[in-house]
Amino acid sequence: MSNLNSIFYPKSIAVIGASTEIGSVGNDIAKNLTTGKHEGKIFLVNPKTNELYGSPCYPNVAAVPEKIDLAIIIVPAPIVPKVLEEAAHKGAKGAIVISAGFKEVGNTELENELKTISKKYNIALIGPNCLGVINTENHLNASFSPVMPHAGKIAFISQSGAMGTAVLDYAKKLNLGFSKFISVGNKAVIDEEDLLEYLAEDKSTSVIALYVEQLKNAPELIDICKKITTGKNAKPIIAIKSGRTEAGAHASLSHTGALAGSDAAYNALFDQAGIIRVSTMVELFEHLRVFTHNPLPQGNRVAIITNAGGPGVMTTDECIAHGLILAPINTKMEVALKKELPPSANWHNPIDILGDARSDRYYRTLKVLAGDKDIDSLLVILTPQSMTDEEKIAEAIIETKQNYKKPMVVSFIGGKMVTEGVTTLQSAGIATVNFPEQGARALAALTKFSEHAKNPKHDQTISIKNTNSKKVDQIFKAASAAGKKSFPEAEAMRILSAYDFPLVKSHIIQNSAEAKDAIKYVGGLGVLKVISPEILHKSEVGGVILNVTPENAAEKMAELHYNIKKNAPKAQIEGFLVTEMISEYGIEFILGANREPGLGTMIMVGLGGIYVEVFHDVAFGVNPLTTNDIEHMIGKLKSEKILNGTRGKEPLDRKALVECIARLSKLLIDFPQIKELDINPLMVTGKGVKVLDARIIIE
Amino acid sequence: MSNLNSIFYPKSIAVIGASTEIGSVGNDIAKNLTTGKHEGKIFLVNPKTNELYGSPCYPNVAAVPEKIDLAIIIVPAPIVPKVLEEAAHKGAKGAIVISAGFKEVGNTELENELKTISKKYNIALIGPNCLGVINTENHLNASFSPVMPHAGKIAFISQSGAMGTAVLDYAKKLNLGFSKFISVGNKAVIDEEDLLEYLAEDKSTSVIALYVEQLKNAPELIDICKKITTGKNAKPIIAIKSGRTEAGAHASLSHTGALAGSDAAYNALFDQAGIIRVSTMVELFEHLRVFTHNPLPQGNRVAIITNAGGPGVMTTDECIAHGLILAPINTKMEVALKKELPPSANWHNPIDILGDARSDRYYRTLKVLAGDKDIDSLLVILTPQSMTDEEKIAEAIIETKQNYKKPMVVSFIGGKMVTEGVTTLQSAGIATVNFPEQGARALAALTKFSEHAKNPKHDQTISIKNTNSKKVDQIFKAASAAGKKSFPEAEAMRILSAYDFPLVKSHIIQNSAEAKDAIKYVGGLGVLKVISPEILHKSEVGGVILNVTPENAAEKMAELHYNIKKNAPKAQIEGFLVTEMISEYGIEFILGANREPGLGTMIMVGLGGIYVEVFHDVAFGVNPLTTNDIEHMIGKLKSEKILNGTRGKEPLDRKALVECIARLSKLLIDFPQIKELDINPLMVTGKGVKVLDARIIIE
Repeated sequence: MSNLNSIFYPKSIAVIGASTEIGSVGNDIAKNLTTGKHEGKIFLVNPKTNELYGSPCYPNVAAVPEKIDLAIIIVPAPIVPKVLEEAAHKGAKGAIVISAGFKEVGNTELENELKTISKKYNIALIGPNCLGVINTENHLNASFSPVMPHAGKIAFISQSGAMGTAVLDYAKKLNLGFSKFISVGNKAVIDEEDLLEYLAEDKSTSVIALYVEQLKNAPELIDICKKITTGKNAKPIIAIKSGRTEAGAHASLSHTGALAGSDAAYNALFDQAGIIRVSTMVELFEHLRVFTHNPLPQGNRVAIITNAGGPGVMTTDECIAHGLILAPINTKMEVALKKELPPSANWHNPIDILGDARSDRYYRTLKVLAGDKDIDSLLVILTPQSMTDEEKIAEAIIETKQNYKKPMVVSFIGGKMVTEGVTTLQSAGIATVNFPEQGARALAALTKFSEHAKNPKHDQTISIKNTNSKKVDQIFKAASAAGKKSFPEAEAMRILSAYDFPLVKSHIIQNSAEAKDAIKYVGGLGVLKVISPEILHKSEVGGVILNVTPENAAEKMAELHYNIKKNAPKAQIEGFLVTEMISEYGIEFILGANREPGLGTMIMVGLGGIYVEVFHDVAFGVNPLTTNDIEHMIGKLKSEKILNGTRGKEPLDRKALVECIARLSKLLIDFPQIKELDINPLMVTGKGVKVLDARIIIE
Repeated sequence: MSNLNSIFYPKSIAVIGASTEIGSVGNDIAKNLTTGKHEGKIFLVNPKTNELYGSPCYPNVAAVPEKIDLAIIIVPAPIVPKVLEEAAHKGAKGAIVISAGFKEVGNTELENELKTISKKYNIALIGPNCLGVINTENHLNASFSPVMPHAGKIAFISQSGAMGTAVLDYAKKLNLGFSKFISVGNKAVIDEEDLLEYLAEDKSTSVIALYVEQLKNAPELIDICKKITTGKNAKPIIAIKSGRTEAGAHASLSHTGALAGSDAAYNALFDQAGIIRVSTMVELFEHLRVFTHNPLPQGNRVAIITNAGGPGVMTTDECIAHGLILAPINTKMEVALKKELPPSANWHNPIDILGDARSDRYYRTLKVLAGDKDIDSLLVILTPQSMTDEEKIAEAIIETKQNYKKPMVVSFIGGKMVTEGVTTLQSAGIATVNFPEQGARALAALTKFSEHAKNPKHDQTISIKNTNSKKVDQIFKAASAAGKKSFPEAEAMRILSAYDFPLVKSHIIQNSAEAKDAIKYVGGLGVLKVISPEILHKSEVGGVILNVTPENAAEKMAELHYNIKKNAPKAQIEGFLVTEMISEYGIEFILGANREPGLGTMIMVGLGGIYVEVFHDVAFGVNPLTTNDIEHMIGKLKSEKILNGTRGKEPLDRKALVECIARLSKLLIDFPQIKELDINPLMVTGKGVKVLDARIIIE
């Protein structure tokens, strides 16, 4: 998408719809461009006037005397396609369509016209329905934002224009600079994926921030982001996504579907992609400050320097809660600190240099800690006491940062008494936060990112053998022909069997007379289950009977018949499934899959049985999964402890579980028509796993 | 503690240790008092000078020509007792000891002297080792804080002085006012309990904030706070406590002890007391702003008004995550909003009045919503667009608040563009937050508090019968005589039996020959367990064998012997416990108790068995527990769902579980020497509960 250069580095720009009406969008943009410091040529197009902000106006694009690179379009929606085509004829390879009135109000066709024209002329098009684009490098404010941010390292991609203005305004107050700002609007042509690829190569950008409402094509996005966030020139991507609670509204027939919902999907996507998700604006700005102003920490050992005990302890809490450790003070530091500090100071970490500490004591302490290889990052806290020289302490901090280049976050807690000190720090590019706990959270995120960036995991692959895709294809084709979409237990088992999933021994019978032999066939101890298209959750109607032996088979069949008659009298009984009962120690897990339209297929693993709904101890991943992804998913489960063996129990067969998930991944790649799938329970024992029940829904 | 009036409303004050040295604590206090607006008489005591800040100095307290109410003492620690006694002779009924050098550096004896003198003369003593006291009502700054806060409704009790200054300074920036500020220091005499009782009656205080490092006497504190936080004149208490991660360091022999730790204890305490715990300073200030500036909401239905979609959705997320609901828009509001808003606006909640909204549109929308009985609170969001008239919108908001008195939180998102608007709002006593998500969190807390305050739960009591305290007393006395502190399974069961806990049938045997008959005695299906003082966790060494029948008893005993020989060869075997095996459906819970020194005894309930360590699904309560406390504890468990019956399973006997916890509460009240206790598992079935195993440790 090298055409994006025409957006960010245009030599000549046409503003089509430049308006004379103060306060209008067309006027704001014309003003931003003509009165700003951008050096490219600006051609204003407005048929009703000859001049605006000292620049001549042209009646239409065709009348512009030169070739143009970028067209900024602010005319009414219906005439945008026409104007875009005119701009194309003038050579435009970039377009920013500010105008609203497209897909967001149902005008999908009009938006499709823009796509077609953009494709025809190979135009990189931003919008429609957006705020515009800013590039601080060349002072380009091709937006109607009244705020032009300071130059800096952050590229911000926002799906909300209004949010964009607010963010730019707030960031300026914090002295936080941006390289580029892009309001993507409806994303008719250029979307996050294109911009991320472009920004990966952008030398002026070192941190990427996203405000997201909806994404598509998770697997591709994951691939791109994995590349951006790892390796030598890794750039962190920090995302905030609205609409978390949608998840609750997700209605679904399968357990997996009910537990999934779009928010779990986005969490899985961000996690797999190496994107750092923050959940509030406060957190976003904490992260941006800390990420922009610091090198990556070499490890997770933080030193806290404070002139007050309380905040030191609270910050310790937050550090530990977010995975940092308080650096142990080695002998060298101990000797030096004891020399520099008064006897009643605490040289243990958090290091309390006492309320009467002035800049000299801060400086000497910082020097000891910043200069030691056993400290990876610093958290500096100040509370204003009457003897505190905040301004000079700020200078001591700045000097330490310049000399030692160690990651550092500073919190001067207070109001008026610390304002000047904070301004000094911010102007010098020191990451500051109002309260130190906030710094701990963001520093932990930076440390985690550093770890992630340095250690791109090389995937071992599991080769999945014995997959009979022909057989599954036949089953689905036959079902398709019969208009059938749901495959309950017995049929789902047939499909899984074709992909060599480890299944319990089972046998279908039609009546009680066959039960005894069937129990013998499955090994002498079995489970009876009703087969009925009307019964979705068998155990809820007493449709599952355990501990059946050849001797009590007849009696148990009678019990099963009774239960169904009582609890689901209208259900049509198609037969009975007799399955092997596993008597060795094992724990019921659940595996599942759920397709999120437009985004991708999510695979779920978690604790099954009655605990599914109680603990929601499940983890999601976006298919296709690598082995590392699978291990990472299992690692997120609390029940991982059970796999490892808890309270004297033998460990369970983790390897078999991983293989089973990989097999599921393969099945879903081969058959994208699978919409929902539950394997529940999947019995995980000390030696292998076994599918005890399953259901599949196709499109 | 009416003597506290001498602290807060003194008519005459002696500053003992007023210093001429600029920047010293003794100088700061003298300056604060003599140059402030406080109207009481100030007597400075300093033998080395005649005059300071225009006031005469006296060589010692005795030389002060009048009776004094309050002595502020800043002399070196060793002479504080002498000076305090002198002040007492001058009539002082209040003392603030600023001086450090007492218990905090190990000088417990010196601190005890202060206690003795204070008791002897009935003096309310704050400190030692503190910042002092501020009362804005009478302009009293009896502290060395350089900041004198605005007058307001918040009383702030801080265990850290340094934290205090920072908080006062920051609050001033937010235009947040205080009634009283108390730095409690070492709490030799006056502690939080005394101050809370005093502030409960203080007319100028309507919100109480605590910064806590350590508390004592949880049951009494709970009683006081329950009264303060409920009823017609309920005052919210908001606490921040440092040292959360200490919990990890808590070493203990029992499961309960390991899971407890001081942070769980404090959580239980705050929860039972009705204290709102916040975990960061950011959250504390959000809460203070929202609580101070609003009446209590009548319900949890919030309306969000925004000029940008994105922040509206994000705020919705936070509202729902914290238990608020988005108020459904009734027909009356719908009609009015459709009339007031442009067609493309969204009148559904969150109400998006669009980016071009000016003050008139904000005002008309606010009027519709604030005036409707179906809206309980308002969250107003603004992002600055070029046409936004922030100042006038601020005025519209202020007018709405004044007219309708509805709880309201406002977020103008941005920097310079919104500064003036925000200042206007804050000056008018409107609760503002930087980002609307923060407002959602605090508004939810206010709503929850309103619910709590209005609905003090009247406790039903469970009468606990059949407790044979004489027998337990005998057992403990005998143990005491023998120097015995730990009671493993068999003995613990004897104790529980005396208090009529429902126990499984059990029998102790000495050898394999007795096993068969014992199994028959417990009902034909039993469990074999080793009894050994060296084996703490039996199942980890194979010391528990399930499914034992009279037929296989001999074989199973052999297996048990083999396991112990292999896994715990050095353990001394005292015998074997044969217990009944419960075959009906049930779930293993855990009950426990753990004493936190100085604080109280915590009772724990949660999911037992192998899931204890996996999910930590446990809840704590401070003993004595009321029935409501017990119900509330169970309600906090995720496994409550299992009790209620999940996935077609019958509900379990919740009533029996509650009764069992009440019984435990009684046992712990009767025998405070119990230090740790585990009942694990407690099998909860559809009909009753049964103790399967237990251990008790006494002091």
